[in-house]
Amino acid sequence: MQESEHKLPRGFIITTAEAAIKTHCRSDIVVISSTAPASAAGVFTKNVVKAAPVLLDMERIKGGSARAVVINSGNANACTDRQGLDNAVEISGIVSDALHIAKDECLVASTGVIGVQLPMSRIKPALQESLVNPTSRTLLDAASAIMTTDTFPKAVSRDMETGRCTATVAAIAKGAGMISPDMATLLCFVITDLAIDHTALQLALVEAVDNTFNKITIDADMSTNDTVLALANGLAGNERVVAPGDGFNSFRAVLQEVLMELAVMCVKDGEGATRFVTVKVVGARTDGDANRLARSVANSLLVKTAIYGGDANWGRIMAAIGYSGVEFDPGVVDVYFDDVLVVKNGHGANNDSLAYEVFNKKSDLIITIDINTGGGSAKIFTCDLTEDYVKINAHYRS
Amino acid sequence: MQESEHKLPRGFIITTAEAAIKTHCRSDIVVISSTAPASAAGVFTKNVVKAAPVLLDMERIKGGSARAVVINSGNANACTDRQGLDNAVEISGIVSDALHIAKDECLVASTGVIGVQLPMSRIKPALQESLVNPTSRTLLDAASAIMTTDTFPKAVSRDMETGRCTATVAAIAKGAGMISPDMATLLCFVITDLAIDHTALQLALVEAVDNTFNKITIDADMSTNDTVLALANGLAGNERVVAPGDGFNSFRAVLQEVLMELAVMCVKDGEGATRFVTVKVVGARTDGDANRLARSVANSLLVKTAIYGGDANWGRIMAAIGYSGVEFDPGVVDVYFDDVLVVKNGHGANNDSLAYEVFNKKSDLIITIDINTGGGSAKIFTCDLTEDYVKINAHYRS
Repeated sequence: MQESEHKLPRGFIITTAEAAIKTHCRSDIVVISSTAPASAAGVFTKNVVKAAPVLLDMERIKGGSARAVVINSGNANACTDRQGLDNAVEISGIVSDALHIAKDECLVASTGVIGVQLPMSRIKPALQESLVNPTSRTLLDAASAIMTTDTFPKAVSRDMETGRCTATVAAIAKGAGMISPDMATLLCFVITDLAIDHTALQLALVEAVDNTFNKITIDADMSTNDTVLALANGLAGNERVVAPGDGFNSFRAVLQEVLMELAVMCVKDGEGATRFVTVKVVGARTDGDANRLARSVANSLLVKTAIYGGDANWGRIMAAIGYSGVEFDPGVVDVYFDDVLVVKNGHGANNDSLAYEVFNKKSDLIITIDINTGGGSAKIFTCDLTEDYVKINAHYRS
Repeated sequence: MQESEHKLPRGFIITTAEAAIKTHCRSDIVVISSTAPASAAGVFTKNVVKAAPVLLDMERIKGGSARAVVINSGNANACTDRQGLDNAVEISGIVSDALHIAKDECLVASTGVIGVQLPMSRIKPALQESLVNPTSRTLLDAASAIMTTDTFPKAVSRDMETGRCTATVAAIAKGAGMISPDMATLLCFVITDLAIDHTALQLALVEAVDNTFNKITIDADMSTNDTVLALANGLAGNERVVAPGDGFNSFRAVLQEVLMELAVMCVKDGEGATRFVTVKVVGARTDGDANRLARSVANSLLVKTAIYGGDANWGRIMAAIGYSGVEFDPGVVDVYFDDVLVVKNGHGANNDSLAYEVFNKKSDLIITIDINTGGGSAKIFTCDLTEDYVKINAHYRS
């Protein structure tokens, strides 16, 4: 990737530290900070069991502003009780002290194993040292530092015109496993120099997340730590975006583009995944029905293993829509693999050899299911299920 | 297993045929018939997409009596349109003609690949031949003939005292994959010489299925063909069971015991499974809540792979109850692996080495989750998720 793809917005600084939280010789802490005050917005996991940093951020984000985010990989700081919350507060305190910002202007995020206390004796000196003698790091460095089972860093940056100014929207994400829609998402951090109010920023973030990260699923397991945070410091000098309108719409479009790129990267880097699959449902009674039908297919282990095996077994797709909880007439359903019609009116269309071509030769596959009933549609992005997913997750802690 | 475990009830005859439906040199058709008229009951898949034999049986069972069931493995006869229904009718017609019973007294069941028409040119002569020159087969032969990816046949038989008579309740099942609760179940056929009305038989069957097959999950994929059928021919000579009461209760208890044995066998034979897991939730607000919490854990890919890997990663269990959709206070939750307390009040109980012992040494594991809030409880039975599940299902059709 070219460095221009990873341009930082004005006034944002990235530093990293090595605290050997889970493994040695890698950056596992990153601090993203803004030299100017910034509007802040956040979307968090809907899991009832929320990690300590999520609980802390949910409180702090209410103020609508933040200047820094400190993120660690290798430990989720989840199910860690009062001690976990105290540790999150202490880590954010180290950052706010060093950067001379208010305590509640530093947000916190963690990712990794659940139920283990953070190794504070290693984290504190490493973090302090990195802030006393800071070395500016790149967006890609930040993306690398937050990886867990990810196999590549995920970072995107886009410029946008706004009036006579140019603003930059950049973001990093980590994904790989414990990824399911209908939640905030994995971890994702958005920074921009656009001038925008925190209420408008929050609205744009919620909508963009719903159209991107909430449309992907890898294993239907929703994490305790899912967090998307956005900081906007206004240094682009544009007329401040305060409410829905042209400026807001442009920003939301760019933000959605950035998050969609990251979401697709997360699916492509799904644990053990070899194929990227778009499940598209059209002709359902409502968009909500289409969404449930598409998710049922995208989460079916039998569909996902068939895709891995290159087996154009459309019967498993019919079974998966059948148990989605949505009522429909199976006798009018059509199914396509890319452009190949494989099911016509609920039974085989005798295109098996063409279907096998698609299944065996393409690493990027579109399954279209036409319910032929109404105008509801939805798209869900997923990947196949392989032996490597099992291997990675059977031995993740060891 | 001893032959006494597989005793046939009076008046039931089993024949098998080799029709090379999917593979050669194995019995893949079985006919179970009664020499006397029999009450009949059935429970069927809740999948919107129902196989042809399911649609046919749902109609025929309304009459409340049946004399025979013909079952084939190797082909599900699902998503096969009008032709599939015609084929099911034709197969049952061959049986009813040969046995001189009414057409609608023969039920049909199929299991195997979806979306392919039955090879009628091979099935018809093989079935006819087997009925013209019948050789009586055992319950275990029948159980073997209905296997697909099952690795062992599943058959159970129990005697029960009723007044001064002894009746026998016998059943066979097939399982292995595409198995999820909240449906009828896989395929299971119950035969008994008890005298019982079809309404009482239906009631006992629904309750027993709900407490057994509906409490297991292997891959959360619900089949298009799930069917449990029961035939009761009354040859035991007991006072006819017509309504709930002592006789009914005894029968229901034995039936439940027989189906539970088969359900446990199905989980133990789960595709690629190496461990049998009981997920038990207690202290939930309601039984319904407990059921949702237990299912969420039992269906979590991350929990199932951790169990396979022998990794006592209780954090994944906390995450899975957290996204179950049930509201609860994570700060009072306790979790046990067998008798080892691993989570106390929502955080680690520092018994990791004991927990690892349980996880690494036992092939039969109980996970108990105490929500510490109310009196609701539930148990769900499942297995681990292994590379072999992926292998089997990636290449099932090939």
